[in-house]
Amino acid sequence: MSRFRLGLENIKDRYDCIVVGAGPAGLTAAIYLARFNVDTIVISKDVGGKMALAPLVDDYPGVPNVPGVRLAEQFENHVKKYGVPMIIGEAVVSIRREGDLWCVETEGGRRLCAYAVILAIGAEKRKLGVPGEDRLIGRGVSYCAVCDGMFFKDRIVAVVGGGDSALSSTLHLSTIAKKVYLIHRRETFRAMPHYIEKARKNPKIEIITNAVVTEIIGDKKVSKIKIKNVAIGEEKILDVDGIFIEIGSEPPKQFLKSIGLELDENGYIAVNPDMSTNLPGIFACGDIAGGKYKYRFEQIITAAAEGAIAAKSAYEYITKVKHT
Amino acid sequence: MSRFRLGLENIKDRYDCIVVGAGPAGLTAAIYLARFNVDTIVISKDVGGKMALAPLVDDYPGVPNVPGVRLAEQFENHVKKYGVPMIIGEAVVSIRREGDLWCVETEGGRRLCAYAVILAIGAEKRKLGVPGEDRLIGRGVSYCAVCDGMFFKDRIVAVVGGGDSALSSTLHLSTIAKKVYLIHRRETFRAMPHYIEKARKNPKIEIITNAVVTEIIGDKKVSKIKIKNVAIGEEKILDVDGIFIEIGSEPPKQFLKSIGLELDENGYIAVNPDMSTNLPGIFACGDIAGGKYKYRFEQIITAAAEGAIAAKSAYEYITKVKHT
Repeated sequence: MSRFRLGLENIKDRYDCIVVGAGPAGLTAAIYLARFNVDTIVISKDVGGKMALAPLVDDYPGVPNVPGVRLAEQFENHVKKYGVPMIIGEAVVSIRREGDLWCVETEGGRRLCAYAVILAIGAEKRKLGVPGEDRLIGRGVSYCAVCDGMFFKDRIVAVVGGGDSALSSTLHLSTIAKKVYLIHRRETFRAMPHYIEKARKNPKIEIITNAVVTEIIGDKKVSKIKIKNVAIGEEKILDVDGIFIEIGSEPPKQFLKSIGLELDENGYIAVNPDMSTNLPGIFACGDIAGGKYKYRFEQIITAAAEGAIAAKSAYEYITKVKHT
Repeated sequence: MSRFRLGLENIKDRYDCIVVGAGPAGLTAAIYLARFNVDTIVISKDVGGKMALAPLVDDYPGVPNVPGVRLAEQFENHVKKYGVPMIIGEAVVSIRREGDLWCVETEGGRRLCAYAVILAIGAEKRKLGVPGEDRLIGRGVSYCAVCDGMFFKDRIVAVVGGGDSALSSTLHLSTIAKKVYLIHRRETFRAMPHYIEKARKNPKIEIITNAVVTEIIGDKKVSKIKIKNVAIGEEKILDVDGIFIEIGSEPPKQFLKSIGLELDENGYIAVNPDMSTNLPGIFACGDIAGGKYKYRFEQIITAAAEGAIAAKSAYEYITKVKHT
């Protein structure tokens, strides 16, 4: 069911720019487009994206210690202040070129066209898909050690994964927690060698390879995890207060390819430094944007900055192509 | 005279990371370094940088309509919360490699060393250097149309400059103000052709070439400017409510070159997407950072994001080089 932030009567079928997604990147793009006086609409399945799911955000500069849902509200109110219409609760299912416009179709069958589209749809963190995981998100299950690490001072935590994010999270958590298990399903790591070496030398870190997590256990919060050795099938219970899942993200590759977008090797949209893509008039920002010009650090502040840049580039593009 | 944000007794001569500068980029770097548990100090001649000079900031997402000096305080308090020491009121005069460290000297004769240095010293906006300019900053004199344009609804403004920023500001202001003078000291513009064409066609915009501003006039706020035709020497007074000066920035090239840093064609530090420079252990972020990977859009949000990325990269670098 879609909620309109402004009444239905305000929705037109033509705008100068359509922002798809309302996480920190999309909402910031909307703020800047409004400031550039670009006729804009936001379409998103939800408001706040992953930001709204964080129990407490402490890394958005100037706004320490704020519940994620409250910060998302502050972003949304900032957009509303400028009167930008928003269609919330409807995902976009197709984006097609028609003449000099891009036309967007929503799952609700709505069709809107614009000179420029800014894609800020985020990327879901890859989940383990085990019992207890969804139920205990924000209660010991986390997908971001920099965001949530501080909650685990002198506690026991586990990190799942074998790449740079997993190793970097493990080392970071070892400076906060009492003990960190690093659980990886293979024998060898694909992370940077110096990370692996540091982890091996660190007495607080216990590395468990060839193992997968099969269950996350806890009533109100995480208390244990069940792991299974993939070589010999043996199961084991570990007492932990938290589990950090660092096994990558899942961009909607098929959807992005259907638009004709060039993707990087991980399936993210390849953007130029100005957040433009291979398709003139389509811009991307936030977690869905990737490519060689972008250093991936999935934070509210970085997503928002990319939103501002995408808005400026879209404004410049529209100034160029719009017949006035 | 230097003010210590934490008592003098807390200042050591060795840290893991030194952040030079305390605008949005430097303060955000400090927040993130603290979150990565990196032993950090901030050294800066002032707090807040250009952010602190803005009468009202309305484009920092989630925090609409805040005096710049207040937002700067919020950033500073966020850093203080983590107990990061700050030396404020002392500029850094030299940065030199010593063994595996970088050593920084302040104008006060203080010497501190660290594995990594993050340069976030900003870049001063180039001024006209005419009577009235300094006195009327924030009272009609502005260096940022996106930031301050909204204050001039249905008023008369002037823009000074001939590049993309000047033209983009002129077009933007034409959607807000009643009339916009574009004043350029040469006959031809170096801005993008479509900007020039749009400006020429726009009835609200009056282009005055071969002219320089010689005085900004006003008691409590800007009311007039004096301009002079550089070809024939004729002077003229224009009634304006605001003047936007868009003639570029002034990075401290000699200082940067003395460190051995590679600069881009405008004198900004050439950074990689991860904010590293040609010198291992030196990172740059915010307005002082440039190069081909960066799309220049000098906003609080973009500077802050670069600070976060620089902090992460410095953390990774320190993890690699530090002997533990």
